[in-house]
Amino acid sequence: MLDTMLNHRSIRNFRADTVNEKVLLEILNAGTRASTTGNMQVYSIIVTQDRQAREKLWEVHFKQNMILQAPLLLTFCADFNRFNSWCRQRKADPGYDNFLSFITASTDALLVAQNCALAAESHGLGICYLGTTVYNADKIIEILELPEAVVPVTTLVAGYPADNPALTDRLPVESVVHFEKYKEYKPEDINRSYAEKESSELTIKLLEENKLETLAQIFTEKRYTRKDNVYFSQKYLEVLDKQGFMRNVL
Amino acid sequence: MLDTMLNHRSIRNFRADTVNEKVLLEILNAGTRASTTGNMQVYSIIVTQDRQAREKLWEVHFKQNMILQAPLLLTFCADFNRFNSWCRQRKADPGYDNFLSFITASTDALLVAQNCALAAESHGLGICYLGTTVYNADKIIEILELPEAVVPVTTLVAGYPADNPALTDRLPVESVVHFEKYKEYKPEDINRSYAEKESSELTIKLLEENKLETLAQIFTEKRYTRKDNVYFSQKYLEVLDKQGFMRNVL
Repeated sequence: MLDTMLNHRSIRNFRADTVNEKVLLEILNAGTRASTTGNMQVYSIIVTQDRQAREKLWEVHFKQNMILQAPLLLTFCADFNRFNSWCRQRKADPGYDNFLSFITASTDALLVAQNCALAAESHGLGICYLGTTVYNADKIIEILELPEAVVPVTTLVAGYPADNPALTDRLPVESVVHFEKYKEYKPEDINRSYAEKESSELTIKLLEENKLETLAQIFTEKRYTRKDNVYFSQKYLEVLDKQGFMRNVL
Repeated sequence: MLDTMLNHRSIRNFRADTVNEKVLLEILNAGTRASTTGNMQVYSIIVTQDRQAREKLWEVHFKQNMILQAPLLLTFCADFNRFNSWCRQRKADPGYDNFLSFITASTDALLVAQNCALAAESHGLGICYLGTTVYNADKIIEILELPEAVVPVTTLVAGYPADNPALTDRLPVESVVHFEKYKEYKPEDINRSYAEKESSELTIKLLEENKLETLAQIFTEKRYTRKDNVYFSQKYLEVLDKQGFMRNVL
């Protein structure tokens, strides 16, 4: 178990081999054993295998090649629709059209996603998460025909790896863990935390390519810019509103 | 690996035995191997072991006994503070004071949490997630002294189990999985999905105790009421705002 976790690397090149039904079912089954708020299971998993459907999702996930290569996409959704339907069929008035309920349901969905990711890896599959799910949630809702009270929160690309990339660097564990109280980072703590990352070959290559002075600037000016973040913040909040998760009123 | 997942049950009774440092470090280390957006690792883990500190957290987590019993609490936080500090020290202007950045960071934190949960279980520990983290995030921020750009998203209680509860029921896998498109639930699909849960001994006992007609009413009228959900929605949105994650403006 620990080995599977310690060996995790995101895979972005896949062989054409499909994932057989038994393996897929075991992955999904392991997913549903994750902890869930009040055992409500307020999530859904949408399985995409069809080539045309993958092409549509490829479009909205910024046309990343791996999406067409990999045989399997799993879109994890915060889902109160099923639970609400159950309530209404059972003379109960569901009060889950608010932000807290979205947070509850998205937490559920993300724990399930990580179980599925690890289950897939323990079956020899490679996975990659798609953050673009949040950026273009509106278009994914259209493609997958998600009803009110359902919002996509993340996507896993899965398939048999065509390469075996090196383990990605991580900050030292002590840089992300605090004992008893949050310990504010002094300048020298920041320097120590990011030293390995900043001196890596990959970083030096990126700085040359981007003609920038620091790795942090690559994040703020190229990868995750304020302008994009603000745009996608507004868009996702609109999606939450449209799907009925922002009626924070009695 | 799959066995650990399939055997998961939330543990709410713990022995007094502490978790030794080596095991704790292995759990935290496995956590940091989880996928993270752009390898930014925008999360922090706060470890609480001190008795007095656990008592303070017990207060804000609705005084659940297990919190005093268990030797270890892990609070997982969406954290852009460290990343922002790094950017500022490296002549980069961080644009992460918005809702998208909160979603990015909380996704990171939740994947780490599930890795830690499974790593703990693979070491023979029992765990339980605390949804109350979101309800009283403001008080947790005070207790753990979380700075701006840090918001708690979930908590794991961990320790050696004092009991071995039965596996909790789950909806049939086919009830939470959709192939290619979201399949809207017909009344008979809802009946089939919830049949096992509704006919369980636990449900029959709960209905008698609560003098209610349906299990769904126990959720809507007792456990997760509209009134509470609306109250905690507003409170958590205020926390996001106060911690600097709602400046969705250029």
